[in-house]
Amino acid sequence: MPRGRRRGSPPTRQTILAAALGRFTNEGYDRASLRDIATDAGVDPSLIIHYFSNKETLFAEALHLPRISEALHRTLEAAGPGSEEELGAHIAQALVGLLEVSTLAPAVTALIRSAASNEDVSRILREFLTRTILRRITASLTAPDPAFRAALVASQVLGVMMARFVLRLEPLASADPGLLARVIAPNLQHYLTGDLGGYNHPERQSAPPWS
Amino acid sequence: MPRGRRRGSPPTRQTILAAALGRFTNEGYDRASLRDIATDAGVDPSLIIHYFSNKETLFAEALHLPRISEALHRTLEAAGPGSEEELGAHIAQALVGLLEVSTLAPAVTALIRSAASNEDVSRILREFLTRTILRRITASLTAPDPAFRAALVASQVLGVMMARFVLRLEPLASADPGLLARVIAPNLQHYLTGDLGGYNHPERQSAPPWS
Repeated sequence: MPRGRRRGSPPTRQTILAAALGRFTNEGYDRASLRDIATDAGVDPSLIIHYFSNKETLFAEALHLPRISEALHRTLEAAGPGSEEELGAHIAQALVGLLEVSTLAPAVTALIRSAASNEDVSRILREFLTRTILRRITASLTAPDPAFRAALVASQVLGVMMARFVLRLEPLASADPGLLARVIAPNLQHYLTGDLGGYNHPERQSAPPWS
Repeated sequence: MPRGRRRGSPPTRQTILAAALGRFTNEGYDRASLRDIATDAGVDPSLIIHYFSNKETLFAEALHLPRISEALHRTLEAAGPGSEEELGAHIAQALVGLLEVSTLAPAVTALIRSAASNEDVSRILREFLTRTILRRITASLTAPDPAFRAALVASQVLGVMMARFVLRLEPLASADPGLLARVIAPNLQHYLTGDLGGYNHPERQSAPPWS
């Protein structure tokens, strides 16, 4: 039967993704099985493998990683070249756009929860951040040490996600997203283009400070 | 036998804490059992209950929460009143002091991992942050909306911990702690005393913007 469905309609794919998000959110990466997800979606497990190859890819898609990546890409495209001084505000605004998509809040929560407790997911998130998100931010910077700057931006964004969705730390957890964007934007900007107080990237660390 | 040890010497208490840290770090809050911790420490489980009352308290002590709280308290005491403009640097420095204590890195990692995956630990960490850490920071601020400011500081500190210890996001993960303190200090300071761009705390949110 799954064979007959191999070129299944998009709704089937969406049904699997919705079932996967539900399982990953409630049970975490480890405990959510492809078999249970297939049962929830009313399909044969082999159809999941056909569409998504493996659990990792299903996880990434169910948790909207391609969508998050696309949102950032659009943000950087729209900001255009030479707009480094406003990049903090643009990234903060993109973050808020994501916070306001109702399906993304549980996805981000599931992502951070799973990454914190599972080494495979930690690697998926690290690679997603490094290869997709941070690489794009790094490429749009002209300041020295762009990779360190991008990682600092990631630390603040992750911290907001953690405080808001995982720990539900008030009054941050229920703060208006637009306000949150305005509050963190100058800090993201400091990381992106500000003076980092003497940071030397590894290649330069052996040089004397007066060189 | 545990009875005879009830007024056990401090080394026994330390042995239990070390065993607990090992189990919590490797297995997380849920899977680490008091029975296994007792076995590792070579004591009867009832002795753990005698010393720590329950698993939550043992967890908090094993993960150095009282010590983190004490470090922050000393920092704020040393900074003294009227030093709000340097509080960001002081808190960043205290954070670095903690990062450099070798036993604290695994403890913080275990704490974040467990908090992300377990609702009980999430509550323990939220209450620890709210009642101990954030309350003290809040009390030392004269700027409006101190609770929101303290929560923002917590979000950046949590984010650094998450990026550095859980995700091991380079080059932040291996950045020199002192450098990291200098880099994040101005951002913490912005949250503590800067202009938050129109934040209204909940009691004021119903008032018109021109009031």
